[in-house]
Amino acid sequence: MNRANLITAIKRKKSFLCVGLDPDILKLPSHLSKDAEGVKEFCLKIIAQTIDSCVSYKFNLAFFEALGWQGMKVFEEIVSVIPKTHLIIADAKRGDIGNTSELYARAFFEKMNCDALTVSPYMGSDSVNPFLNHKDKWAIVLGLTSNEGAKDFELEKIGEQYLYEKVLKTCSECGSEESMMFVIGATQTPYFTRIRQIIPHHFLLIPGVGAQGGSLGDVCNGLMNDDIGILVNSSREIIYASKNLDFDIKAGEKARELATEMSLYL
Amino acid sequence: MNRANLITAIKRKKSFLCVGLDPDILKLPSHLSKDAEGVKEFCLKIIAQTIDSCVSYKFNLAFFEALGWQGMKVFEEIVSVIPKTHLIIADAKRGDIGNTSELYARAFFEKMNCDALTVSPYMGSDSVNPFLNHKDKWAIVLGLTSNEGAKDFELEKIGEQYLYEKVLKTCSECGSEESMMFVIGATQTPYFTRIRQIIPHHFLLIPGVGAQGGSLGDVCNGLMNDDIGILVNSSREIIYASKNLDFDIKAGEKARELATEMSLYL
Repeated sequence: MNRANLITAIKRKKSFLCVGLDPDILKLPSHLSKDAEGVKEFCLKIIAQTIDSCVSYKFNLAFFEALGWQGMKVFEEIVSVIPKTHLIIADAKRGDIGNTSELYARAFFEKMNCDALTVSPYMGSDSVNPFLNHKDKWAIVLGLTSNEGAKDFELEKIGEQYLYEKVLKTCSECGSEESMMFVIGATQTPYFTRIRQIIPHHFLLIPGVGAQGGSLGDVCNGLMNDDIGILVNSSREIIYASKNLDFDIKAGEKARELATEMSLYL
Repeated sequence: MNRANLITAIKRKKSFLCVGLDPDILKLPSHLSKDAEGVKEFCLKIIAQTIDSCVSYKFNLAFFEALGWQGMKVFEEIVSVIPKTHLIIADAKRGDIGNTSELYARAFFEKMNCDALTVSPYMGSDSVNPFLNHKDKWAIVLGLTSNEGAKDFELEKIGEQYLYEKVLKTCSECGSEESMMFVIGATQTPYFTRIRQIIPHHFLLIPGVGAQGGSLGDVCNGLMNDDIGILVNSSREIIYASKNLDFDIKAGEKARELATEMSLYL
């Protein structure tokens, strides 16, 4: 999916919601089997009820890998039924030396048919570049994350700037706004203005609203740009809205509620 | 595998060789099928011929993921036949917020039965910690890598120290020498002394000897410690030593040659 189509989808739906699929078998509703098949049913039912309220799905690969190859098999099966109207993000935080990153790009963009992949920038621009040469595909580079540990390195000062600022600058010089987004945690409010000074036009993938304490209002006021420019992810609030038979219905209700909130900012 | 057993294995074999399995289907010998089954046969035959010369196998997960779930299935099958005498490293460079890192740890240490996993530290110590509470399992944290892009961030100065130094310090305070190693590229010779000042006792996983230009002599002289303390990885030189029917025999010869070279430093 390209940038223009993403913006059109957001405007048409009046939603920039990304539904995060982090299916922990320990948290599945009790009537579902605690294995890859249970995870598949869980995800497919949640997708069916949320698809009209969101523009994107983000798969947290850890939860699929934890089930071994059977988990990866159902991941591919689930991806294959999501229509091309939705941006499919593999949240896998890959990144390695050039030839290995190229293989990861092939894996997620070609073999597994995802539109976007989250990428860790630690090893430098040559670990990010191989993700940028795939038409209508996206590298979503970790910028400033929402976790406590962001202080350890991302918020260390390199001369006058923070490491995360250096990452935004260096990486944004490698890829255009058509092939690169950045992950910015919703909890990092004090840095929003600076982030939009450095990368005014890039789309941002924003986790951390809800369970982790970030506010939708702060995110919209601080990070939205003329092309909207944000995808706000919600995982646990939606997918675990109920642990009962009606888990999918409740997930759909929660997604609609979030989309309605979002529409007020558009 | 714990630290004492690893040291014993190295001393007994007089080898600290780690054989890197990066099986690119485009580079397989022509008589093998260009799919997951071909990759499985390729790896199993190389393992059979190299097992007496090395103490560890490092699987580059990108090459397995590039084949989709079928690749992950053969990865698990290959791991299951390697005896417990060898340290099995999943080179997957994972790292995420706490609960997700915990899932990655479960995936690789429990479900897939690996001994060690490479970890990217960008998101901070809380993304590394969940890998440290698994008995006889190892997090191998990216320190200073061998690629050109290491200059972009790892070798940026935070005050008086480089980012990679800060990473070594912060992460080594989280885990003991029994649960943590670091990746140090063989090409980073000028930094070897400083690295051993910061982490004198940790084991290091060292890629970059051979194809990438690092020297075994420099690595041994600069990074070996009283407990040996290094695992030197060789991938392409071994696994692609021949593209013919005798690929496994040639891989075995190359591994023996490297092990013999290593024995001179022990």
